[in-house]
Amino acid sequence: MTLIAPNPPASAAPAVRHLSAAATARLLGHWRAGGPAYLALADALRSAVLSGTLAPLTRLPSERDLASVLGVSRTTTAAAYARLRDLGFAVSRVGSGTVAVLPRASSAEGLSGHRTAPAVPAGDAPAAERTEQEGALDLATQLDLGQATPSATPALHAAFARALESLPAFLATGGYAHHGIDVLRAAIADRYTARGVPTTPDQVLVTTGAQQAIALLAAVFVAPRETVVVESPTYFHGIEALRQTGGRVVGVPVGDVETLASAVRRTRPRLVYLVPDFHNPTGRSLTADERAFVRELVDRTGVTVVGDETLTDLALDDDAAVPAPFAGDGTSPHVVSVGSASKTFWGGLRVGWVRGPEQVVQRLARTRQSFDIATAVLEQLAVTELLGRRDEILPARVADLRARRDLLVDGLRAAVPGWDVPSPPGGLCVWVGLGRAVAQAFTAAAVAEGVRVSAGPSFTPDGAARDRVRLTFTRPPEELEDAVGRLARAWRRVTG
Amino acid sequence: MTLIAPNPPASAAPAVRHLSAAATARLLGHWRAGGPAYLALADALRSAVLSGTLAPLTRLPSERDLASVLGVSRTTTAAAYARLRDLGFAVSRVGSGTVAVLPRASSAEGLSGHRTAPAVPAGDAPAAERTEQEGALDLATQLDLGQATPSATPALHAAFARALESLPAFLATGGYAHHGIDVLRAAIADRYTARGVPTTPDQVLVTTGAQQAIALLAAVFVAPRETVVVESPTYFHGIEALRQTGGRVVGVPVGDVETLASAVRRTRPRLVYLVPDFHNPTGRSLTADERAFVRELVDRTGVTVVGDETLTDLALDDDAAVPAPFAGDGTSPHVVSVGSASKTFWGGLRVGWVRGPEQVVQRLARTRQSFDIATAVLEQLAVTELLGRRDEILPARVADLRARRDLLVDGLRAAVPGWDVPSPPGGLCVWVGLGRAVAQAFTAAAVAEGVRVSAGPSFTPDGAARDRVRLTFTRPPEELEDAVGRLARAWRRVTG
Repeated sequence: MTLIAPNPPASAAPAVRHLSAAATARLLGHWRAGGPAYLALADALRSAVLSGTLAPLTRLPSERDLASVLGVSRTTTAAAYARLRDLGFAVSRVGSGTVAVLPRASSAEGLSGHRTAPAVPAGDAPAAERTEQEGALDLATQLDLGQATPSATPALHAAFARALESLPAFLATGGYAHHGIDVLRAAIADRYTARGVPTTPDQVLVTTGAQQAIALLAAVFVAPRETVVVESPTYFHGIEALRQTGGRVVGVPVGDVETLASAVRRTRPRLVYLVPDFHNPTGRSLTADERAFVRELVDRTGVTVVGDETLTDLALDDDAAVPAPFAGDGTSPHVVSVGSASKTFWGGLRVGWVRGPEQVVQRLARTRQSFDIATAVLEQLAVTELLGRRDEILPARVADLRARRDLLVDGLRAAVPGWDVPSPPGGLCVWVGLGRAVAQAFTAAAVAEGVRVSAGPSFTPDGAARDRVRLTFTRPPEELEDAVGRLARAWRRVTG
Repeated sequence: MTLIAPNPPASAAPAVRHLSAAATARLLGHWRAGGPAYLALADALRSAVLSGTLAPLTRLPSERDLASVLGVSRTTTAAAYARLRDLGFAVSRVGSGTVAVLPRASSAEGLSGHRTAPAVPAGDAPAAERTEQEGALDLATQLDLGQATPSATPALHAAFARALESLPAFLATGGYAHHGIDVLRAAIADRYTARGVPTTPDQVLVTTGAQQAIALLAAVFVAPRETVVVESPTYFHGIEALRQTGGRVVGVPVGDVETLASAVRRTRPRLVYLVPDFHNPTGRSLTADERAFVRELVDRTGVTVVGDETLTDLALDDDAAVPAPFAGDGTSPHVVSVGSASKTFWGGLRVGWVRGPEQVVQRLARTRQSFDIATAVLEQLAVTELLGRRDEILPARVADLRARRDLLVDGLRAAVPGWDVPSPPGGLCVWVGLGRAVAQAFTAAAVAEGVRVSAGPSFTPDGAARDRVRLTFTRPPEELEDAVGRLARAWRRVTG
């Protein structure tokens, strides 16, 4: 065995993205909050990492360059980077600058399974002590008004128990159902048919959550540099998935179907991605006329439109009846619907689906084999159970979410009268207008106060909506009440 | 509301790929079996669809072009296409030619959950009757020596029952654990550590099966037109996933690390993908020296190597001890290991993992959110249970697979003495040498005899290995015995 000759030059460090000083300044927007500049700058950068605007493993600009672009002293940027490092949100190495990272400690994503109430430090703790603790506390103990998944329906455990009774019939197989198991495909098809969209099981592909459905549609339809039209703002991970295959994502205002039509004519996109029901993040639903207009648009232009109906079941007001199905009569070869069990039942269930023309379903099913082969069988059996009990399950779930929405909306309106706090007729979040383009700074201040929220720019393809934040109302009432006070304090930090 | 003006030209048909006559001829290879040419041609095309060599929704060449390239009459190609249509494997439309599809009827992938033994027509049924039935029977009733997933371990049901007892602690959360739940990450890390690769939970990302791990590595490391080096042959869906992001896949012979080193120096790949243990499909394992050589190669060149250890647990011979971990002492920043619960426990469990440098894990975790957000929680709890009982579970599973391997290998050696039938020391399949480059024709003939096998070219980036087929031994002994006789008959059809 001959060892190979050394190769110049060995590149030992994993590849990272670079962010220029100018791009960093754009990303931070209006970052100055009250207090020392270096703390505000560190908070804004940390918040950008937490909200996903700044990807971990991004190399930040040099202290000198950033100071120059922001118009602050190099002492300020150096101190801000040092603080980021202390908090675990950056690492520096001689010769390779400062790189943004997520802290190594167990994160909020770790789901220990034993933590029920977050141990946020009391608001009246001495400032110095709180600053000391923040690094360790941020991720694990933030009140989470960022994540849009409610806790599980109480019916979940029983559904799994029944699913387990059905499992033995599958154990002699290899367990790979590339299109989904027959009973679930049939149950999903039946639901569409019952809603007035005649559907056969062959028109249904079971996916590993709605997120995979969007990623598959991107992989099958969108090649590098091809265009996808979306609403702006829209679902954050939707934008990400549509960009994953190199697509160019173009935004049009929510509900403005005339502009949508002109964008389609102008850009000839491969795909249009819409959230027609209780839109994330605005809560708006397309009217019946608007839906008909979109279907006519795609049938005339031959462009495929995806209607993401993940939130359809969550109509929170009595007068907000669930809108008519996006697919209309279900006959268009250009309309694809996406659905999910995550919001209706639980996010920890990873089951979604696509309803569309059979040929589209076949292409997606083929590509999904290179994604994850198939969706877990027991998960599918549990969702089959839950879909069968949907009408029993939903009223309590909707009532619960309605109460949480009202608590958050009323609380915010009272606590910060200057904000625009719309009450969404459905869905899981409030799209708050701050009245000033300070979303990044406010998000950073909120983290400092112990609350995770999502800055508006995360939801737009071009970093717009800097005067908006998205607040979810999926957490328990006591956490939402606590969060309202903290958010008001964070706002005072920003506005001085 | 103004309806938009009609747009010229409306393209109503979903996009399909086109396959030229020359490419079709290459794909078919030596397609002529015994019997009428149109039947052999139709069988070969159908087999190409079944084996995945010919993607559904591919537009086939015109009857005239194909006839010209194959040197047959147009009557033959027309009759072959007509038969494909009759069998449900093609559709034709005026003006848009003939398009390969998968049949609409419930497929083998549908997992009805109630079929235990396939109702293959008796071998002595009248030929005409069997031909009539084939279209409906092919997919639903083939003896499946194509899929490499055994039935579930008997311990699976109990593991899920125990997992269900642990589930309530998670139900108050949103259910999204982007890196995996803490207990499973710790259990996976402990297993590496116990095998001599010190590992912390932060170095582990739980994925939705090993397939997703490969797809994520492709998404993070491989941009369009960048190179990935793989063994040839190698895992079929691995090639697919690595090509999904536009990568160029280059093959080197299995176990030839010198050629691997020169390919790495020559092509400067972004990634090397290897199956070091009980390689799929050849069964070969890298020696300790070869492993050390590969680690030194990547540390010198800075190229990242992925060791897919999906089959590691399945050492079938007493003298085939599980090889030492591919990651060595686990300190290289360029070595990533992939593992899975699918082969050890069950394919219907969709849980795999990546073990690698923390920064790589963080990048993959971020990208996985646009793939499917997170892996299902109950699945992860069940795999945690199963990993804890691995030493109890494995002996019976291995003994079972060993008996099936021996049955298939001995049966094939006796039935077709001219074949090269190696007995693999581990894994799930036999890489049979036919002695002639007729894999496609044989695979087609096998389908006609009621057995699904995989043609060699599916496992190579360049369509080589036309003299090989892969046969899996995951099905019950009675099915394997039945299959051996059918495969011998299929071989006689091909060799006349």
